[in-house]
Amino acid sequence: MGQLESAREGKVTGELTACANAEGLEAELLREKVAAGQVVIEASPNHKGVTPTAIGSGTRIKVNANIGTSRDRADIEFELEKLRVSVESGADTVMDLSTGGELDEIRKTIIESSPIPVGTVPIYQAAREATDRGKTIADLSPEHLFEVIEKHGEDGVSFVTVHCGVTIESLARLEKQGRTLGVVSRGGAFLYRWIEKNEKENPLYEHYDRLLEIAHRYDMTLSLGDGLRPGCIADATDRGQIEELVVLGELCRRAQDAGVQVMIEGPGHVPLDQIEANVKVQKTLTGGAPFYVLGPLVTDIAPGFDHITGAIGGALAAWAGADFLCYVTPSEHLSLPGVDDVRQGVIASKIAAHAADIARGVKGACERDLRMSEARARLDWEKQKECALSKLPFEKYRDSSPPQDSDVCTMCGEFCAIKMLRRKGKP
Amino acid sequence: MGQLESAREGKVTGELTACANAEGLEAELLREKVAAGQVVIEASPNHKGVTPTAIGSGTRIKVNANIGTSRDRADIEFELEKLRVSVESGADTVMDLSTGGELDEIRKTIIESSPIPVGTVPIYQAAREATDRGKTIADLSPEHLFEVIEKHGEDGVSFVTVHCGVTIESLARLEKQGRTLGVVSRGGAFLYRWIEKNEKENPLYEHYDRLLEIAHRYDMTLSLGDGLRPGCIADATDRGQIEELVVLGELCRRAQDAGVQVMIEGPGHVPLDQIEANVKVQKTLTGGAPFYVLGPLVTDIAPGFDHITGAIGGALAAWAGADFLCYVTPSEHLSLPGVDDVRQGVIASKIAAHAADIARGVKGACERDLRMSEARARLDWEKQKECALSKLPFEKYRDSSPPQDSDVCTMCGEFCAIKMLRRKGKP
Repeated sequence: MGQLESAREGKVTGELTACANAEGLEAELLREKVAAGQVVIEASPNHKGVTPTAIGSGTRIKVNANIGTSRDRADIEFELEKLRVSVESGADTVMDLSTGGELDEIRKTIIESSPIPVGTVPIYQAAREATDRGKTIADLSPEHLFEVIEKHGEDGVSFVTVHCGVTIESLARLEKQGRTLGVVSRGGAFLYRWIEKNEKENPLYEHYDRLLEIAHRYDMTLSLGDGLRPGCIADATDRGQIEELVVLGELCRRAQDAGVQVMIEGPGHVPLDQIEANVKVQKTLTGGAPFYVLGPLVTDIAPGFDHITGAIGGALAAWAGADFLCYVTPSEHLSLPGVDDVRQGVIASKIAAHAADIARGVKGACERDLRMSEARARLDWEKQKECALSKLPFEKYRDSSPPQDSDVCTMCGEFCAIKMLRRKGKP
Repeated sequence: MGQLESAREGKVTGELTACANAEGLEAELLREKVAAGQVVIEASPNHKGVTPTAIGSGTRIKVNANIGTSRDRADIEFELEKLRVSVESGADTVMDLSTGGELDEIRKTIIESSPIPVGTVPIYQAAREATDRGKTIADLSPEHLFEVIEKHGEDGVSFVTVHCGVTIESLARLEKQGRTLGVVSRGGAFLYRWIEKNEKENPLYEHYDRLLEIAHRYDMTLSLGDGLRPGCIADATDRGQIEELVVLGELCRRAQDAGVQVMIEGPGHVPLDQIEANVKVQKTLTGGAPFYVLGPLVTDIAPGFDHITGAIGGALAAWAGADFLCYVTPSEHLSLPGVDDVRQGVIASKIAAHAADIARGVKGACERDLRMSEARARLDWEKQKECALSKLPFEKYRDSSPPQDSDVCTMCGEFCAIKMLRRKGKP
């Protein structure tokens, strides 16, 4: 019996208890939220040693790091290093989005090496294998796709992105409105090509019950992908995007009825003033299912700095009610991320998540900030380093060019405001 | 006659015309806003070749970069390089905050070399000169402080930060409430020490009329500093901070009555959920004077990444009505910024400013995003580089490790969604 069914029957599983402890929440309260489909517990039974992780209403905002090979760079050691840095920088989950090299082996190695839940996008593998056999994506057989999904569940994947809402109907709405940048989701584009060529409905929609059976078998969460997410500010919150979300709302309910945990993926590129609306609409259309957003990016013109663009949008989205932030790295729109890009991406998203936790009044969120501020008041640099999201900048900035007075920094020197006003006898 | 008085008399100055053209606004509309004190025109008559820059309601959000020496590093060439990078990265103004080396010479050189308006904090120089003479900050003579301010006006400084609201009364309120991190503004700390030691009122408050005369003489904008800004989330929006803002509201009006342009400085460290309130209160208390915010930083725990923390807060503040963002660099809280820190800081603030311009519907703000998105749709990488905030990442990511297919990138390779769905005959 999976997490959702257990919760509905009033059972507090070991994974749920672990999550409640990690969040500082009452297990019973968390159980109710899982039962209501407002929180998902990520902890594949087939992923040994995984840290159970709760995503959704009332829990800390979580951060996902995407790693994985591409045809241009397929090196498992490189990916394991990205995994290590993701975990070290505070990622709560990773997704293996590999599309190059030995995909089964890469996935298994990542899961074996990962202390945090792993997600995937199975259609990437199905597409890779189709093209490797000299076929096009449009030749992909639904049978093959479901086999891949099943394999991922067996291997210990905790959540899979499935673009079930890319339907004949939602694509028609998208085409009717017209777009500046069309479809920018890889999974969305695969399915668009498939539907167009085969003149048939998206198999993930058509055979959704089969998908639910597989997900149920492995207690694998469905992350209903937004294949029609806007790829630029000009396309944000258009009819294609919202039509897909309406469909996902229906599918969300069907998954929950089948005892399958589910979350909803969201945009994308969205201007600041549309972010809250996007979150609120997702919540109403899905009965409060966890919302997993990619960014959102609040402008299109900052390649090289899209981790910042995404942190702005992510903070606002999370404050408005989004639950799970997919990181964006500085290399977004330019290349596959390197190891340092992964670090920058995770930290930027952690900042957004933490800022939103503070604003939402999540239990204990302010405590670390308070300890940091007290350490600053004492000019206690060791303690500051300890409270910081990353220790590396202390080495980069302070240790490499130390100030004349070791209790201050080279910015203000003897004019340090805190030092000037320290009182004798005060800490 | 200065910009404010000219505007009040219905005159459209050359500087105002230049600003109106740069903003794509009607000069008459801008003149009305200047006359109402809701926009300031930065263009010191003594700064040759300065680009007149409008800050305030209805104009593009502007970005300031702080540069300047410290005792630990006083190298004019280093500062000129930071100036060059600030301008190249899109800063609208710079502030010379030097506290080390030959301050007069450094300031004059920076002004001579700067195409954009320059601001300063004269009390830094006054304090430096007092301590150089073996005195303490509390021995600073008001006469000397006013002489320094006058010198800055003569030299071509467009705006000066003056912490006039650090008064006996506002300090009492701050002490009565108590704070985790006390006073973190250097100017605020100087004045706190001065008031405490001399048992007299802040000379910048006491002799405010003299300050107005000087500012009027050089048509120098007063940027009323927030010496009591919160230095951590726990201290945000407390009674000390708001008391100071109330005082600044009164002083703002007195400056405008005296024909002196004025803007108000704001925090600091503020959680996401208090940012809008901070902006709205500033606007009501000052009759809509331009609001110049430092950050705000939405968490305390991200040293090394505070340009991101500040971009999140800055975007939200600007969207809520703030007009002018003081950048924060990755070295904030750790050391004097280096050249690359300056670049990172300016770009992060530009992203925040631009995202807010889009959300506020500022004229033309979306156009660059649209051109970028159209270039993406065409897989036109040269045009993307042209539309980007910075060209450097294209060199770093694409040129250094080019993809197999030059029309896509190494992230998705042949699975590029845009490439998959391009239609023959479509651009």
